[in-house]
Amino acid sequence: MGEGGQGGEHHDQLRLPEFACNRNAVSFSHALPDFRAGRDTPRAFLERCLERIVAREAELRAFAALNIDGARAAADAAGARYRAGQPLSMVDGCLVGIKDIMDTRDMPTRMGSPVYAGWQPRYDAACVQALRFGGAVIVGKTVTTAFACGATNSTVNPHDSQRTPGGSSSGSAAAVGAGMLPVALGTQTQGSTLRPASFCGAVGFKPTHGALTMQGVHPISVTHDHLGVIGGTLEDTWRIASHISLANGNPGQAFLDGASAELPAPAKPRRLLRLYTRHWEQEVDPAARDAFEAVLEKLQRAGVVLAGRGDDSDAAALEQALDDGFVERSLDITAYEMKWPYAQYIADHGQLMEKRVHDRIARAQTMLPAEYEALLSEKAAMKTKVRDLMRAADGIITLAASGPAPVGHAHTGSRAFLTYATFLGLPAFSLPLMSVGGLPVGLQLIGHAGGDGKLCALARWIMREIAAQ
Amino acid sequence: MGEGGQGGEHHDQLRLPEFACNRNAVSFSHALPDFRAGRDTPRAFLERCLERIVAREAELRAFAALNIDGARAAADAAGARYRAGQPLSMVDGCLVGIKDIMDTRDMPTRMGSPVYAGWQPRYDAACVQALRFGGAVIVGKTVTTAFACGATNSTVNPHDSQRTPGGSSSGSAAAVGAGMLPVALGTQTQGSTLRPASFCGAVGFKPTHGALTMQGVHPISVTHDHLGVIGGTLEDTWRIASHISLANGNPGQAFLDGASAELPAPAKPRRLLRLYTRHWEQEVDPAARDAFEAVLEKLQRAGVVLAGRGDDSDAAALEQALDDGFVERSLDITAYEMKWPYAQYIADHGQLMEKRVHDRIARAQTMLPAEYEALLSEKAAMKTKVRDLMRAADGIITLAASGPAPVGHAHTGSRAFLTYATFLGLPAFSLPLMSVGGLPVGLQLIGHAGGDGKLCALARWIMREIAAQ
Repeated sequence: MGEGGQGGEHHDQLRLPEFACNRNAVSFSHALPDFRAGRDTPRAFLERCLERIVAREAELRAFAALNIDGARAAADAAGARYRAGQPLSMVDGCLVGIKDIMDTRDMPTRMGSPVYAGWQPRYDAACVQALRFGGAVIVGKTVTTAFACGATNSTVNPHDSQRTPGGSSSGSAAAVGAGMLPVALGTQTQGSTLRPASFCGAVGFKPTHGALTMQGVHPISVTHDHLGVIGGTLEDTWRIASHISLANGNPGQAFLDGASAELPAPAKPRRLLRLYTRHWEQEVDPAARDAFEAVLEKLQRAGVVLAGRGDDSDAAALEQALDDGFVERSLDITAYEMKWPYAQYIADHGQLMEKRVHDRIARAQTMLPAEYEALLSEKAAMKTKVRDLMRAADGIITLAASGPAPVGHAHTGSRAFLTYATFLGLPAFSLPLMSVGGLPVGLQLIGHAGGDGKLCALARWIMREIAAQ
Repeated sequence: MGEGGQGGEHHDQLRLPEFACNRNAVSFSHALPDFRAGRDTPRAFLERCLERIVAREAELRAFAALNIDGARAAADAAGARYRAGQPLSMVDGCLVGIKDIMDTRDMPTRMGSPVYAGWQPRYDAACVQALRFGGAVIVGKTVTTAFACGATNSTVNPHDSQRTPGGSSSGSAAAVGAGMLPVALGTQTQGSTLRPASFCGAVGFKPTHGALTMQGVHPISVTHDHLGVIGGTLEDTWRIASHISLANGNPGQAFLDGASAELPAPAKPRRLLRLYTRHWEQEVDPAARDAFEAVLEKLQRAGVVLAGRGDDSDAAALEQALDDGFVERSLDITAYEMKWPYAQYIADHGQLMEKRVHDRIARAQTMLPAEYEALLSEKAAMKTKVRDLMRAADGIITLAASGPAPVGHAHTGSRAFLTYATFLGLPAFSLPLMSVGGLPVGLQLIGHAGGDGKLCALARWIMREIAAQ
């Protein structure tokens, strides 16, 4: 479904702004009324996406595996259900890409590493089970960096093949950014969902920690790992996250706040904390800074109050707390939690494992249990502190990346603006609302823990407002 | 190492009482001084256990797989380290059996079900990694009921082959009870560690929920699943649990309270709540009742205050709370959490799955997310209530089973006295301190959440006191 394709007239107000560089985006939610009315079918949608895949995959290398026959069969089955007026769920017939650290019964799961060459799980991860039982069409496995914490991989940016797509959910973001798929799953332990979403011009969503199950997904750091969703539209992103939550839940955890097939009603933020961070001076691209300031001006014109470190004591205290070693200490938690199973990989295949994994395991071996417990306690205290400092605001607004995707493929870019929300477990979106030199840059919106639906409502309002001005 | 074997003289006060029916028990901790002094070796210990295995395995069917060559090589390597005075850890050279729902890199992991026939994981579960990296000798996989929630399996009771060994950690308990191994890992989601420990005359320990990692172990219900340890002695049981905790921790959780190679110093309980429960009238074997009363009398003679529902308002309130539908509602939590991955097993292999799994998945499909969340909230409130009611006591004392292992192999016995502590996440021991008709019956001791070391200190005191009187 290209630009101007059928179905586009149903949701004009929700179409993404032209400067967002994602005019290629395809949307399941936008096609749904046509599925229901018999004007379009999941199979036809799939074939349009397969055309894109055929046209661009050789260049983009977004997929680690494709199951085209399986996808066609699943799309046909979904089509039959729509014809009978009995779709299985809110995602019936939706095409989805699955990051290649998530177990899939019908495709290998190679974790982006030769350590798992040829590995074929018997069963789907919980998120994949939820989608497949709901009738979603699992098109393929998307390329990840090694174990979702490696330096780089084979995928390139769909907007400029000389640039990184970001990582570690590289293939998911590239496939969505190129319009090969409406939506794909990612994970985020530092910045692995929002960074590639920002670089590829897609919506990225990392929910409150624990809102979506990670069962059957290869872990890095359980207390920091989040399932994420990357979509061409906010609707599809929210729909997929909602379905995964409602289908299975996550043992012992609350469901995704506001989970629903429909987007929450747009809600205007009254007050947002503007987070600069030390990276504002250290690494932000001047043009990205200008684009960000332009967005902020539009929000202010619409009456949104923005409070920053220069004019608000809470914002200043927040900045100070977050840049006072919090990130570095959280990385030690990650290191400790990586002992299983990474110590086995190092022992067996040390030469195949990247230096950063060696370094983290080496660091973990020096840590005493009491140090780990102290870090957990400190993090719990930090969460309370940040909650208190955010109390008077609807959320935090900042960049998702310090600029557009950098040139080169040696690494997947900076995660500087993304680790804060990840390590605090706060919900965050990257919204494709800025552009620098024709390349996308994401606006990051961070919400209150457990307030995912409320944050999505703010995101919807902001997307509409920025598009309208 | 039979009764009177070498090493026995080192720990006379800790030897198990004769009426505990586990005179066959072997102990790594008791052999350790001999390993260090060069009077015994891990390999010789292994060969003695292999003799027992050869003698009894055809009858008992405790093992799903054995890796004798691997165990001999590991024992020899441990022996070399002791000769060099450089053991790797507190479990170096300790023989361990691994329940067959735990991933092992060197042996199939079949979950007790034909659904996983021939399944060979690539890496060890976290608990197995911890043991293997510490130099422990992984002797074999022990038989489980299907997915640790099935009705029965092939293992028989080492004290009477006409009787069940209990389940689901049947092979672990039978192997330890028969002196084939000093210690083996189990799991407990309802009663699957303490029940077979009680029936086979072993020490069973289920720590505070979350104290030991379940990573790489097939789940039933994440909020109820516990890793458990079954040992011939309290020392080995505590040592193995301690090592697993200290080696890896459990992401985001506190370590095992008091974790140490050495047992906590014995601590006399001042006051214990005696829990009868509704099962006292409904199903307790009269001889088991007498044996239990005899233990209580000994404790009272030693000055321990026992408070029961007839004479203590807290004990009465506790009984009422626990028998007011709490267990049944907790089973709905289990059902909901089983959707992944059991719904896939039902879809693929419905005819291979037991009726109870079908029933739970069917129940789960009728539950709304709000119902599940309400059950979690209710459970959290129950934990608080029980914590308050236990405040004036050192712990709870009750039966581990309503009698000795029942005759027959159609099912693995009642879990009636065990589900309370499991569903509350409280630490619990089954101590082999009673005997009915020459068959073992366990005394259950339940502690405060996070007070595992303190509970072990009470258990140690009680074992010594009962043996001495």
